[in-house]
Amino acid sequence: MRAEIIAVGTELLLGQIANTNARFLSEQLARLGVGVYFHTVVGDNRDRLRSVLEIARSRSDLIVLCGGLGPTEDDLTRETVAEFLGLPLVLDAGVLQRLEALFASMGRAMPPNNKRQAMVIQGGQILPNPRGTAPGQYVEAGGRRYLLLPGPPTELEPMVRESVVPLIQTWTDRESGAIRSRVLRLYGIGESAMVEQIADLLDNQSNPTIAPLASEGEVTLRLTARAADEAGALALIDPLESELRRRLGKYIYGCDDETLAVAVGKELAARGWTVAVAESCTGGLVGEMLTEVPGSSRYFLGGVIAYDNSAKQGLLGVPGEVLARAGAVSTETAALMAEGAARRLGADWGVSVTGIAGPGGGTPEKPVGLVYVGVYHSAMKPWVKRFQFYGDRRQIRIRSAKAALYALWRRVREHGGSGVEPERRE
Amino acid sequence: MRAEIIAVGTELLLGQIANTNARFLSEQLARLGVGVYFHTVVGDNRDRLRSVLEIARSRSDLIVLCGGLGPTEDDLTRETVAEFLGLPLVLDAGVLQRLEALFASMGRAMPPNNKRQAMVIQGGQILPNPRGTAPGQYVEAGGRRYLLLPGPPTELEPMVRESVVPLIQTWTDRESGAIRSRVLRLYGIGESAMVEQIADLLDNQSNPTIAPLASEGEVTLRLTARAADEAGALALIDPLESELRRRLGKYIYGCDDETLAVAVGKELAARGWTVAVAESCTGGLVGEMLTEVPGSSRYFLGGVIAYDNSAKQGLLGVPGEVLARAGAVSTETAALMAEGAARRLGADWGVSVTGIAGPGGGTPEKPVGLVYVGVYHSAMKPWVKRFQFYGDRRQIRIRSAKAALYALWRRVREHGGSGVEPERRE
Repeated sequence: MRAEIIAVGTELLLGQIANTNARFLSEQLARLGVGVYFHTVVGDNRDRLRSVLEIARSRSDLIVLCGGLGPTEDDLTRETVAEFLGLPLVLDAGVLQRLEALFASMGRAMPPNNKRQAMVIQGGQILPNPRGTAPGQYVEAGGRRYLLLPGPPTELEPMVRESVVPLIQTWTDRESGAIRSRVLRLYGIGESAMVEQIADLLDNQSNPTIAPLASEGEVTLRLTARAADEAGALALIDPLESELRRRLGKYIYGCDDETLAVAVGKELAARGWTVAVAESCTGGLVGEMLTEVPGSSRYFLGGVIAYDNSAKQGLLGVPGEVLARAGAVSTETAALMAEGAARRLGADWGVSVTGIAGPGGGTPEKPVGLVYVGVYHSAMKPWVKRFQFYGDRRQIRIRSAKAALYALWRRVREHGGSGVEPERRE
Repeated sequence: MRAEIIAVGTELLLGQIANTNARFLSEQLARLGVGVYFHTVVGDNRDRLRSVLEIARSRSDLIVLCGGLGPTEDDLTRETVAEFLGLPLVLDAGVLQRLEALFASMGRAMPPNNKRQAMVIQGGQILPNPRGTAPGQYVEAGGRRYLLLPGPPTELEPMVRESVVPLIQTWTDRESGAIRSRVLRLYGIGESAMVEQIADLLDNQSNPTIAPLASEGEVTLRLTARAADEAGALALIDPLESELRRRLGKYIYGCDDETLAVAVGKELAARGWTVAVAESCTGGLVGEMLTEVPGSSRYFLGGVIAYDNSAKQGLLGVPGEVLARAGAVSTETAALMAEGAARRLGADWGVSVTGIAGPGGGTPEKPVGLVYVGVYHSAMKPWVKRFQFYGDRRQIRIRSAKAALYALWRRVREHGGSGVEPERRE
């Protein structure tokens, strides 16, 4: 099955927003074993959308459209696809009822325009949208499959997870056997070092397949298996995953959509532990990543953004003598910052970042990209690691924050799992 | 001139990265008065790239390609475009020399593969790439213009600013007179309220034009003028900008690419003032935004991430009695947090955010999205504003952080500029 994604919206062509829907859909489709060959963005224009549909029909089996399902005159996707397929739009009583109930629950009468959102392409299937007004639609016509999805990511993403993925799985299960995949997420190891450790597995792969990918300092392994049914596919993936975990386990922090911050949170929450941060060059990014996770207040107490040295002294208790002698960007300062955060906040764990994000501030001894990450726990020897990152300010800050989260994850697991004393530096 | 953007890279089709280059290019082209009608993403595949080029040639005057200029076998853009245009690739001695010098400066011999990056399409023009190995190229053929740009945004963005924008301006200046535009960035006012205040200007616009756009809680006005030359165009924009500033000045925090954090930094630095943050529901995001700006250490001292109430008490000095009586999400707590941050960090200004980002934690009295922003300066009455934001956790956090930066910007200007006592609440 060859797929392509068409995003409809003039705001994308004006550069007001990035096409994150295409990214999200591509990632989901890749996991289902569906190849995406093209992304297209087109404005809110009937003729141009038609021309894009013509091209898509000539080269793809599955055409996923997103955007243009709203209630206004600019929202043309539903009408244009129906016209293009030569199928009428019909009013769906169930959708209309739900829309009216939704407006009633907000104490408002439904504006007449919204009635358009209850129109569905004849013969199509409705994909519920519990987070918005426009339902999604699925239509098959002329040997091609069309999915119409809403534009706002807050509506599209849950609809894809809840309705689109299961729908595509029923097709692939029927047509080519069950395809299932699992993504293992790694940190702290480069792509080439990882490939070396699993070269024999990569050389001999056929079913399941292993696809290594590297992006933004992280590495992932996508395992994909085909079998008669889901249980069969998972039975192929499981032993391969076990073997990969045996070899690379200390780097594998999560599966599928799990971020480093989610992984850290799981480990802390499972042990009833809390954490505090002390950030210099990341300026709050580590805290921001940790608190992106709903429910993070169970284990995240807060922290100190110690951008200036006075904050490292006053709020974290790093002695002025250490700052003067070893410097703000040093092993000693990183260790004391992590300890200071844990003590001041009363947390079990402290994690610190201090470094030079650039573009200015570097010296021959302490160049831009030099970063120290510290992790503290009262029952553990102080742990600090030195990094030399490359890239621009933004990249150095993101990598620093991820390195801090990964370091914390490793220490929490080692400390909490086996009681083994972690190394002082690695 | 009708433009389209083609991004080349299988990593985009796998959903590993979002197509931020298309967003950036679209924004830049819109400012030049060049309409972008399509974005396409295609993988590292010669045949598919050719098919995409065929389509682009049939419908666009300017075709901007990004990605696929690297040294590896996967990087096919240069060769495929040359082949498509029926033009040979020729070795450019100047580019080769620069590449060799670059590798020599890193103490390495140039890998033979990199020689490919010194091949340019015959008759083409080279666009220098001071931040990477692959230069950009511009070729005109068959009445169409082709720009080949590198994929990494850290290379593409400066190349567009330094080479592509001036190049396109020479075309448009020659072909349709000078088109110049300026983007005014507003915060703290909704799109419809803004439109009301400038309805007469919007109704009567012809040259210059005014295009209002809203996205992510911010509003922008793009002013575009056409004239015989640049001076003429700017002479049309300037009086319109003055009139808009007269009506909307207190909301206009910046121009063009200026972010709220940059605008805040300018105001603080101009007056020699410093700031500290106190963040609850944003978890570090305000600090992160402020420190995204290179050189922010001149005015940003740091702050406290007071996620847990114990941190609000212990590190910011909010009395337990206030937290118990008014609650963590309240006017009183926001005011005391801002004051605590300024005092503890020894900063001139303190800015605080406390609220409920959700999805859990809301109550009928204090629903999800309720956020208080506080601003403190020792010579000013405490300032707090209550917001009710809508959206998901991510949106509420971003809007809260932006609201805090805007509030700080307003207070700093009012306080520092005119000596007028700011209102207590608005």
